[in-house]
Amino acid sequence: MPANPVLAEQTRGNLVENRHRGAFVVVDAGGRVIAAAGDVSRPVFPRSAIKAMQALALATSGAIDRFALGDEELALACASHHGEEVHVASVARFLEKIGLAPGALECGAHPPSNAAAREALRQRGEEPTALHNNCSGKHTGMLAVALALGAPTSGYVGREHPVQVEVRRAIEAVVSEPLGTDRCGTDGCSIPTWAAPLSAWARGFARMATGDGLSPALAAAATRVFDAATSHPLLVAGSFHLDTVVMQAFGGRVMQKVGAEGVQCGAIRNKGWGYALKCDDGNMAASQAMVAGLLLGLAEPDAAQREVLERFATRPIKSVRGAVVGEMRAVSAHFRLE
Amino acid sequence: MPANPVLAEQTRGNLVENRHRGAFVVVDAGGRVIAAAGDVSRPVFPRSAIKAMQALALATSGAIDRFALGDEELALACASHHGEEVHVASVARFLEKIGLAPGALECGAHPPSNAAAREALRQRGEEPTALHNNCSGKHTGMLAVALALGAPTSGYVGREHPVQVEVRRAIEAVVSEPLGTDRCGTDGCSIPTWAAPLSAWARGFARMATGDGLSPALAAAATRVFDAATSHPLLVAGSFHLDTVVMQAFGGRVMQKVGAEGVQCGAIRNKGWGYALKCDDGNMAASQAMVAGLLLGLAEPDAAQREVLERFATRPIKSVRGAVVGEMRAVSAHFRLE
Repeated sequence: MPANPVLAEQTRGNLVENRHRGAFVVVDAGGRVIAAAGDVSRPVFPRSAIKAMQALALATSGAIDRFALGDEELALACASHHGEEVHVASVARFLEKIGLAPGALECGAHPPSNAAAREALRQRGEEPTALHNNCSGKHTGMLAVALALGAPTSGYVGREHPVQVEVRRAIEAVVSEPLGTDRCGTDGCSIPTWAAPLSAWARGFARMATGDGLSPALAAAATRVFDAATSHPLLVAGSFHLDTVVMQAFGGRVMQKVGAEGVQCGAIRNKGWGYALKCDDGNMAASQAMVAGLLLGLAEPDAAQREVLERFATRPIKSVRGAVVGEMRAVSAHFRLE
Repeated sequence: MPANPVLAEQTRGNLVENRHRGAFVVVDAGGRVIAAAGDVSRPVFPRSAIKAMQALALATSGAIDRFALGDEELALACASHHGEEVHVASVARFLEKIGLAPGALECGAHPPSNAAAREALRQRGEEPTALHNNCSGKHTGMLAVALALGAPTSGYVGREHPVQVEVRRAIEAVVSEPLGTDRCGTDGCSIPTWAAPLSAWARGFARMATGDGLSPALAAAATRVFDAATSHPLLVAGSFHLDTVVMQAFGGRVMQKVGAEGVQCGAIRNKGWGYALKCDDGNMAASQAMVAGLLLGLAEPDAAQREVLERFATRPIKSVRGAVVGEMRAVSAHFRLE
């Protein structure tokens, strides 16, 4: 297999300093390839990029009905949030709604991803808690699934726990591919992550966008989850983050979600297309440039949407004193219709 | 040109999650290749990995004699230090010795690289200054060069300033290759960085290690600089950093220096070999795994040296809760004698 192509590069002065290879694919629900580059059959851990798929377990388990969950809770379940005040307060309310305390979360604690929120916490002399963990909304959702299934909440992150079995089944239903323990790892937040080809992740997002190939109940749940995430983009990521500002700019037409180690997944909903992308080396800024390049080339942005995307497709690299000395940029030629 | 080989990879569960490509070469002063992989003819910005070459201008300009500079000052001139107390105090003394104040530094300010030093500064409610910049020792050396040349100190970072002309000449003398403005960029600390092939950087380090092909004065200066750096490894980097602990372990036999964006350069002095390595994507942890693999394979480490290198050649990847979920590791098969 030849190496994947360079999908983003970082310059300094008059040379390319870093090269970021990767693969991506855009498909419709029937599996027709709209655009692609690199090896899209290699198994990839999707990490947080498929939280919208994991959130389907809230529907299949009956947790949405049991707790009368609204769009805010569904958006939080899809989120890698930045630990801003709105996120921490919203997750705390979500936990209250299901009758649990933050101590039930098994994701671990890390400082808020948002610099101002991190600084504010320090200024108050407080330690970060599990509520600040970017995955706390998803974990609260998983606790709701445990309660809906009548399973113990303790140990819900375990691979064999009924919650993770339910989540795995929901993902398998949309990707139409079995997820095997021979391609399994543990995510940063302690839950299992299952690898599958980029083509499977992309097609799963296309199915969620269109409902094609899903049961009516699952199709309805997928629409509900995408609507929740795209109508609450700030809850899904954070101020100034690509996922948030892109979803704000596209007003429901694009579902976009980052995953750790350079994964990006989403759907161009009005076209019925799903997409999945992985930067080979895991660089996050490079994967942002790539997905911005993908949406510029394939999502038919209007002028305002284009402006937002271009900010991420080409980003200045600065010296310590703030002078622009180079740029990170998508290699746009790859992101075109086949 | 085919893609460079994967020299380091990061696993999660039972799969490789990230792949880090790169190129490296180990040569003797005559240019004989001892080991190599990938494209070593592509121009690479060496960044801070060649501070030992830049430090030669302290000799050629007469600054060493004029200010009676000792090994500590020479080690600081070669350093990407971590802003620990010892670094900040030593650079301040160096500045005093040449009769200048910290305000003369044009590198800009950033927080200490060392986490404890960064935290201590915050606790004292102080802002980082140019003294904390990892390049402040090199910049103090460049100010000494300006004074020795009778040039203005202001603007010494400029590409055409006599200091940078002198530094460029010193580098050209050891790499035996002209450095062109068609392959030039600005480093993070505002000075010019000149690109050349990895083979040229490696051979320059071999020449510095042996003196072969250098004037007697330059050969003596090179030995003095390497001796200074390898006998003060803590000044060259910081507590627990690869460069410091590897040089401590090898007791003068290995000169090792990191550069930004995944560059590593050095010399296996007792063999008379120089080496240069670049991780294509700029990942620093990957480049550390690579250079540890290189030294494991080619520097004939004893048991204690091997133990130090293995800590960097294979490093655990942990979840937020601290469980080991994967590893970053060198692909050792590449780092063998030709």
